[in-house]
Amino acid sequence: MTDASETDKTDTPETHTPDEAERHRAKMERRKAVQDAEVAAKTIEKGLLIVHTGPGKGKTTAALGLMLRALGRGWRVGVVQFIKGGWDTGERRAVAAFGDRVVWHTLGEGFTWETQDKARDVAACRHAWEVAQRLMADASIRLVILDEANIALRYDYLDLAQVVETLRARRPDLHVVVTGRNAKAPLIEAADLVVEMGSLKHHFAAGVKAQEGIEF
Amino acid sequence: MTDASETDKTDTPETHTPDEAERHRAKMERRKAVQDAEVAAKTIEKGLLIVHTGPGKGKTTAALGLMLRALGRGWRVGVVQFIKGGWDTGERRAVAAFGDRVVWHTLGEGFTWETQDKARDVAACRHAWEVAQRLMADASIRLVILDEANIALRYDYLDLAQVVETLRARRPDLHVVVTGRNAKAPLIEAADLVVEMGSLKHHFAAGVKAQEGIEF
Repeated sequence: MTDASETDKTDTPETHTPDEAERHRAKMERRKAVQDAEVAAKTIEKGLLIVHTGPGKGKTTAALGLMLRALGRGWRVGVVQFIKGGWDTGERRAVAAFGDRVVWHTLGEGFTWETQDKARDVAACRHAWEVAQRLMADASIRLVILDEANIALRYDYLDLAQVVETLRARRPDLHVVVTGRNAKAPLIEAADLVVEMGSLKHHFAAGVKAQEGIEF
Repeated sequence: MTDASETDKTDTPETHTPDEAERHRAKMERRKAVQDAEVAAKTIEKGLLIVHTGPGKGKTTAALGLMLRALGRGWRVGVVQFIKGGWDTGERRAVAAFGDRVVWHTLGEGFTWETQDKARDVAACRHAWEVAQRLMADASIRLVILDEANIALRYDYLDLAQVVETLRARRPDLHVVVTGRNAKAPLIEAADLVVEMGSLKHHFAAGVKAQEGIEF
């Protein structure tokens, strides 16, 4: 979404008389001037720390969309999955089309109720964080996705202060996306962009199962 | 995200004594039973009507992530952009890797303040809706993304009742994603899944510009 697309949606529908058409044109001309000035006022370019959190769906999925956009710009991308086990997912199959431009590590072993072994979960998350740090240090990679890292932080499987400090110290052109609900306040404080996915309506509540191609 | 990943995140960090480890194991064993029962209770499979709305970023980006997942499952995907003009976007470049499995139409001519011509905007949106209906009727396509269609509906550039009726009447295995803020109530009513993207923090407010690879 561009800046403009995130702004004014406040005018009301109009009919189609010549007068209305001219009023619409004049209003849009004024709005364009405002939009152009807003865009012109934004001059900073930097690698962003992006957090996708909240109870709704789309946190990981939006990170995948960012990955696709980045791949379209010729970037290399790193993905570390902190929690999910080595499932066969559609996204994992799809990125094969981009060869070694996607470095994907699924290092979680599934949810904590699957492993039922906290020490193993902690060890897996700490290993995932080591791999993540290596990817962030790779100058050929412009975007790193730390999928479900918020869950590892929420359970204190990782040292929050150390993770936030490392993310703050990332190189200037590196974009990092951290996903998962219950993002910690210090991470939100360090972030450039925080999106909260809210659930207005969910098909699981209607008995619809997780389906291939949609949920995984 | 799976069903399980959307549920319980309520327990508290524990230390690492053997007793704690055993308590953790027992608790996780109980939770797994609950999770398994929840998943088992969901048996319906159907094409979903998904709406991504709200003021935050990620509405279009999460739709792109769903597209990637669907492509990984071997599906064909249709995309119709109702508002945005024919920009050279990273996502558009990336899907070239999937050849004719992505049918992508950018039929908007930019935001209303760019064209400054309402009749032209309305004509472009109506043409986009005709193309969208053709894609939805193509049995080889399992996912159709109607990007920014909520904006066309919000300005009454399209007939809301007719659009909702057509979406409700989609074939049973067709998934449709509608993006854009200010989703209309009848569309939300018809939807299986509605995600509201909220903006907790935005880098544009800090003077950071829209950047290639991230915003487009």
